[in-house]
Amino acid sequence: MVVIVKQTATKAQLDSFLQWVYEKGLKPHLSEGAGTTIIGLIGDTSKLDENLVRSMPIVEDVKRVSEPYKRTNRKLHPDDTLVSVGGAVIGEGHLTVIAGPCSVECEEQIVEVAKAVKAAGAAMLRGGAFKPRTSPYAFQGLRAEGIELLKKAREATGLPIVTEIMNIEHIPLFEDVDIIQVGARNMQNFELLKELGHLNKPVLLKRGLANTLEELLMSAEYIVAGGNPNVILCERGIRTYETATRNTLDLSAVPFLKSRSHLPVVVDPSHACGIAWMVPALAKAAVAVGADGLLIEVHNQPEKALSDGAQSLRPDEFARLMEQLRPLAELAGKKM
Amino acid sequence: MVVIVKQTATKAQLDSFLQWVYEKGLKPHLSEGAGTTIIGLIGDTSKLDENLVRSMPIVEDVKRVSEPYKRTNRKLHPDDTLVSVGGAVIGEGHLTVIAGPCSVECEEQIVEVAKAVKAAGAAMLRGGAFKPRTSPYAFQGLRAEGIELLKKAREATGLPIVTEIMNIEHIPLFEDVDIIQVGARNMQNFELLKELGHLNKPVLLKRGLANTLEELLMSAEYIVAGGNPNVILCERGIRTYETATRNTLDLSAVPFLKSRSHLPVVVDPSHACGIAWMVPALAKAAVAVGADGLLIEVHNQPEKALSDGAQSLRPDEFARLMEQLRPLAELAGKKM
Amino acid sequence: MVVIVKQTATKAQLDSFLQWVYEKGLKPHLSEGAGTTIIGLIGDTSKLDENLVRSMPIVEDVKRVSEPYKRTNRKLHPDDTLVSVGGAVIGEGHLTVIAGPCSVECEEQIVEVAKAVKAAGAAMLRGGAFKPRTSPYAFQGLRAEGIELLKKAREATGLPIVTEIMNIEHIPLFEDVDIIQVGARNMQNFELLKELGHLNKPVLLKRGLANTLEELLMSAEYIVAGGNPNVILCERGIRTYETATRNTLDLSAVPFLKSRSHLPVVVDPSHACGIAWMVPALAKAAVAVGADGLLIEVHNQPEKALSDGAQSLRPDEFARLMEQLRPLAELAGKKM
Amino acid sequence: MVVIVKQTATKAQLDSFLQWVYEKGLKPHLSEGAGTTIIGLIGDTSKLDENLVRSMPIVEDVKRVSEPYKRTNRKLHPDDTLVSVGGAVIGEGHLTVIAGPCSVECEEQIVEVAKAVKAAGAAMLRGGAFKPRTSPYAFQGLRAEGIELLKKAREATGLPIVTEIMNIEHIPLFEDVDIIQVGARNMQNFELLKELGHLNKPVLLKRGLANTLEELLMSAEYIVAGGNPNVILCERGIRTYETATRNTLDLSAVPFLKSRSHLPVVVDPSHACGIAWMVPALAKAAVAVGADGLLIEVHNQPEKALSDGAQSLRPDEFARLMEQLRPLAELAGKKM
Repeated sequence: MVVIVKQTATKAQLDSFLQWVYEKGLKPHLSEGAGTTIIGLIGDTSKLDENLVRSMPIVEDVKRVSEPYKRTNRKLHPDDTLVSVGGAVIGEGHLTVIAGPCSVECEEQIVEVAKAVKAAGAAMLRGGAFKPRTSPYAFQGLRAEGIELLKKAREATGLPIVTEIMNIEHIPLFEDVDIIQVGARNMQNFELLKELGHLNKPVLLKRGLANTLEELLMSAEYIVAGGNPNVILCERGIRTYETATRNTLDLSAVPFLKSRSHLPVVVDPSHACGIAWMVPALAKAAVAVGADGLLIEVHNQPEKALSDGAQSLRPDEFARLMEQLRPLAELAGKKM
Repeated sequence: MVVIVKQTATKAQLDSFLQWVYEKGLKPHLSEGAGTTIIGLIGDTSKLDENLVRSMPIVEDVKRVSEPYKRTNRKLHPDDTLVSVGGAVIGEGHLTVIAGPCSVECEEQIVEVAKAVKAAGAAMLRGGAFKPRTSPYAFQGLRAEGIELLKKAREATGLPIVTEIMNIEHIPLFEDVDIIQVGARNMQNFELLKELGHLNKPVLLKRGLANTLEELLMSAEYIVAGGNPNVILCERGIRTYETATRNTLDLSAVPFLKSRSHLPVVVDPSHACGIAWMVPALAKAAVAVGADGLLIEVHNQPEKALSDGAQSLRPDEFARLMEQLRPLAELAGKKM
Repeated sequence: MVVIVKQTATKAQLDSFLQWVYEKGLKPHLSEGAGTTIIGLIGDTSKLDENLVRSMPIVEDVKRVSEPYKRTNRKLHPDDTLVSVGGAVIGEGHLTVIAGPCSVECEEQIVEVAKAVKAAGAAMLRGGAFKPRTSPYAFQGLRAEGIELLKKAREATGLPIVTEIMNIEHIPLFEDVDIIQVGARNMQNFELLKELGHLNKPVLLKRGLANTLEELLMSAEYIVAGGNPNVILCERGIRTYETATRNTLDLSAVPFLKSRSHLPVVVDPSHACGIAWMVPALAKAAVAVGADGLLIEVHNQPEKALSDGAQSLRPDEFARLMEQLRPLAELAGKKM
Repeated sequence: MVVIVKQTATKAQLDSFLQWVYEKGLKPHLSEGAGTTIIGLIGDTSKLDENLVRSMPIVEDVKRVSEPYKRTNRKLHPDDTLVSVGGAVIGEGHLTVIAGPCSVECEEQIVEVAKAVKAAGAAMLRGGAFKPRTSPYAFQGLRAEGIELLKKAREATGLPIVTEIMNIEHIPLFEDVDIIQVGARNMQNFELLKELGHLNKPVLLKRGLANTLEELLMSAEYIVAGGNPNVILCERGIRTYETATRNTLDLSAVPFLKSRSHLPVVVDPSHACGIAWMVPALAKAAVAVGADGLLIEVHNQPEKALSDGAQSLRPDEFARLMEQLRPLAELAGKKM
């Protein structure tokens, strides 16, 4: 941590600050320049609150020089994390496609879609049972029943299932789910993250709509620090001023996250753009940029979907996309 | 709702779509122009999913013409909502200042600050017991104990208390709290909102960092639709590209929300800018723009605060600010 | 254009508005619903000012249903525009790589880089002569001399040259340049765009840092409407709250622009991320998403570059990238 | 400037970097910590390119500790700049209201509006002659003729005139204008800024839609460094994801700019929100937050305006606003 000292600081104030630094178990290192004094704080500053330091009377500004995430940091854990689920693996060297409808609607629908995406080569089935909806008047998902239907689809196809959790109290319902998804709106639901850190089950953590990549890693840190190393990061579009697409897919997130962290990174082009015809182009780009996997929405009758039909591919469109992804995965050195 | 039809739509497709509209209990109204056909859907479209319509094969675009929020909508409920808490009132005609530290740290601190803000004219005491922190290694609040200390401060001063909830499971702990705050990160924690809708206790709902004002009203709608009409909206800064302040305070939110909704609107300048010396200027602007109240962070020793000392005023600075606010409140026709 | 009428509008006001619509040569089409009246304006509304209509006393809101761009609109001009420059072609079916240093610095540098990028397969040479710099104290480019040096590099290699214009007065200096680039900061320099519309020379138009894709098409419309059809659109990252990369590359811009317009679309990953090691991943993604070309910064000694060395590839890194792009271009059905 | 060194840097690389620092006339100051080495560069780093340093092989990151703006920096020039125009003054201690229509449309209109705003207490007249319009098909302003009409309005009222320049070539037309306005879209038109730096005439510089406050000060630095100290900064809303208002007015810009710079700061609420009824609330907030002046759009017949009627006040609404601003100006200690 580097502290920039105000020009107006007196010698006495400076000494008192240095004393405080020593008390925190850190070693201050002064650089006095023309008009600017900076102090490097040497030692483990990960538990030092940047804002606390900034509020001190003689401090003009504070800059961190080391990342605040530790267990998710590649510098400290260079080897790639591979998350194994059923027969499937998510992580470096693999391209894992997770497909399925936005919402689970009925047994027929979820089983039919599951069979279709499996036939096309998907490795896992996704489907929403608990649905975060902006409007209280919109379909809120089949909830517990939806999870039961997902299990039936798993039975019918062998595909591991991924579904979203919205609340700590529901954790028992997810006992038999293969991967628990934390949605964008809950990325900073820290109480939930802490609980998920105590489970022995992979967590797919989506980036919040206005969250930085560092904040995403800090949320993953909550889970890993709790004892659960099986976290999968997911880029799903951020909120910007542009209205042509629902969100703006930030594909630079993939190389950035993979360079800073050892965790796998997947991309959800369906939620990012919100437009079915654009999904294949973005899915291909995600593979080319280095993603370890994709979340793709597929629905057998998008125009009758109870949520987000606008962004769902039909099974035949999904199968065609999978064929286009194969050579790209191969070029990227990934098994599909 | 207005539907813009694709140029390529056939007569048969159009008929089938009109049939679907009738089945939904709506009346379609066609306008055929040079190159563009638009269809107005007449009737109650509040439960019709815009995205579902957009996914239909012949639909090019869909535009809502009426607001999706009903119970929070001023058009349907023209009279201002006034929220009464203890002796204090929040709503049109009043300027209610809620002040206190970011976090409750110990009995001495919270009681001392409570006395100071009361002496300066604050109407309520705020203080965080459960703290949402980006880092798992940062101080997480005193939690249940913090709420007990807030009650002691209330006993000592008579000030009603406002504190943040982060999780449904903690609701019983908030039974004796006067106003439950929902923080920016939980604005779309819909499960929590639903539960708060069943309580008989005011809720202070903060705008999310990347949420539109319409989404804020939809989240309030969750609470009001559940049966709890006592919602206070709070603007606290949004995330933009600008880094000079922590967030960008959007004061146009105040006149916008007050024109569209009957709910009271308060402003939190402390969290918005994150810089103590800037708080008074923004607080004055918030009163001038028409806010019904303010949330101001005050700490007796900001440089020793366990969280966000950087944005806290000292008691004497707060007292001076209150003196400056009085004539502004008077000009705005508000009791303080 | 669809006009939503205020609930409070009187019959007399409505009649007077309808009269005004007729006077504008348009036909109004009323749909009266429960609580909402909407009016479709039928006819050519491209010259009608949306804000003017919105300011009328009885108007609650206005929604456009047809795009305001005409000459750049694929609906009206379905065939892809191909821009030919020297032997090179930019447009559907081709992957055109434009490479070179951020700034032209001296003859040796630009000729050496030009030879290197040609050897690696680049189709054109880029290099800045006039440099828009945030600071007046930063290197501002070699200006006219820089253009002369680019010509020497063209002579030495045969590569057509692309360089940025910052001011109308400089147009004569660009007479012998192959493609004139309009930078992000000048995307809405409308006086410049008008002048470029009178030239018979291709223009590479970069998206502004905070401009929507519709605004980009409107700026292109200025040039095409002036009589110059040879416009190449360029996505180069937009400004968002994320600070991990300099800007956020918006690759969904590519399929969106190519669906709405017939103009070619290229991508500049170097300026978007500002980090050399991330450029190859983003370049590959841009090809996979369907871009017609790339702008890549290459410098023989990035650490000595007078501008933006941080994002420049070395010639050997560029050559390696070109090898990786070839199979991707082939998969996308593009000649390189 | 503080340089954070990569963990992988060798002793030889470090020595070579230190050598390079000395050659630049700077003194390096090393702080070696556990796992992190940081180097403070002592001396005048204002001409050192941050990105150049960042691109060096051993550099992990670079952080500036002093502001890159010098002549506009309050630290170096503590006294407030006061800009005098005709009888009017803009700067600390004054509240200067500049009012008038978005566009000059005809002599009758501009003279009528000028008389009305003068009667209500405006100190200057604004009106667009050259209009930057997103669409080439929209009204582009009366251009040179518009400036002549503004002069007639000045003759009739004595009000100094403010109007926007879009292009260097037009500078001669502005010889008799009192304040030259640089619009948001030209804030980084550096060639134009350089030319304006050579004039002896006040410049009102509007913040760009996606520009940081530091960038605004750097653009002002271009003008002041050229020899023209009379720059007025203007906050006019930034582009965010929120669509309820046209732009998001960032009032924290006012205290921030006034603390960092000695230049006067004015606010344009009309362009920021784009909604006439919201302008008074935001204007009052701007005065309360400490603005030195306001730009307010006023039109005698907003519904017939050729541009931006939606955000214009009628003369009577403007007069009422002026009455409301007077006591606020007084509270802020400003003459109006």
